[in-house]
Amino acid sequence: MNPSVEAVALDKAWRLLNHGPTVLVSACHEGVDNVMAAAWACALDFSPAKVTVVLDKSTRTRALIEQSGLFVLQIPTVAQAAMVHKVGHESLADHPNKLAEAGVELFRMPDYDQPMVDGCSGWLLCKVVDEPWNQAVYDLFIGEVVAAWADTRVFRDGHWHFEDADPALRSLHYVAGGRFYAIGEAIDVA
Amino acid sequence: MNPSVEAVALDKAWRLLNHGPTVLVSACHEGVDNVMAAAWACALDFSPAKVTVVLDKSTRTRALIEQSGLFVLQIPTVAQAAMVHKVGHESLADHPNKLAEAGVELFRMPDYDQPMVDGCSGWLLCKVVDEPWNQAVYDLFIGEVVAAWADTRVFRDGHWHFEDADPALRSLHYVAGGRFYAIGEAIDVA
Repeated sequence: MNPSVEAVALDKAWRLLNHGPTVLVSACHEGVDNVMAAAWACALDFSPAKVTVVLDKSTRTRALIEQSGLFVLQIPTVAQAAMVHKVGHESLADHPNKLAEAGVELFRMPDYDQPMVDGCSGWLLCKVVDEPWNQAVYDLFIGEVVAAWADTRVFRDGHWHFEDADPALRSLHYVAGGRFYAIGEAIDVA
Repeated sequence: MNPSVEAVALDKAWRLLNHGPTVLVSACHEGVDNVMAAAWACALDFSPAKVTVVLDKSTRTRALIEQSGLFVLQIPTVAQAAMVHKVGHESLADHPNKLAEAGVELFRMPDYDQPMVDGCSGWLLCKVVDEPWNQAVYDLFIGEVVAAWADTRVFRDGHWHFEDADPALRSLHYVAGGRFYAIGEAIDVA
């Protein structure tokens, strides 16, 4: 595990998602780990911190989340763009060796048995808030953030520091057709 | 109105939001127009195109939306950062002249009586999907996109073209404390 990773206060966890990055969603049930990409993830509340994420019924990750009641949203970096695209376009159902083939390395934090993707810049470990209607009708899952961490080289003191970090640590913002945009320069308004 | 604005096919409307921009939310009821900023807006479905947006109960814009059943999400640009911050931090309740003071210019498309903010790069006109539980408990509104437009200088043929457009047209991604990031360079994965 990256030694720069430190806990993020839960009441600042929303800031990891506020600028709209594409995320990786990971989950585990009965020894099966999986990771998918999702562009449709969003902060929902400050405290207790909550998030939304749209998970298609066809995804294996959704099934793991429905069974375990837990998931991790993590913010991948520019250095991981090819991996993010690959885990977003191949299903574990068709590619049993998907994670290894995409070069995904998982780690676990002490006291938490959820798989987290190494090399990301932030992680939000979430417990599903049971909302069967939203899940069935809209594929919309609500999670309450129970723990969060970030790579202090790029997120510390409750703020992103893209402007003075390694450009390879910038967040990814997916559009379509293999096209991402990296986050760009800071703009401060008084 | 900007002569570069053209309609976007509804099945491509999700692409306006996919990269996670901060948006402006506008609405009108009985002659009262208002505009607020929101970082917590997200695509929800491809077709029919749907979106989510979190609207705090204290906002005047939410009241207009609850009364009219309609709202517009629009994507502001780097050139509008100061205005976006201002309409996101002042309420019409306390600042009756808020829009004029922030320099917001509104226009309306033919056949639609909803206020749209001039100078943005994309607009999604949405009809509220009635979900009283989500609205009351989570401040979460679901909208079905009934019309969409974009500034073809920066979004055309269903794709953003930030990389060859005027940098002032790039999208804004808010964090906190007056700090935005502009969207950055394109990264293509085969």
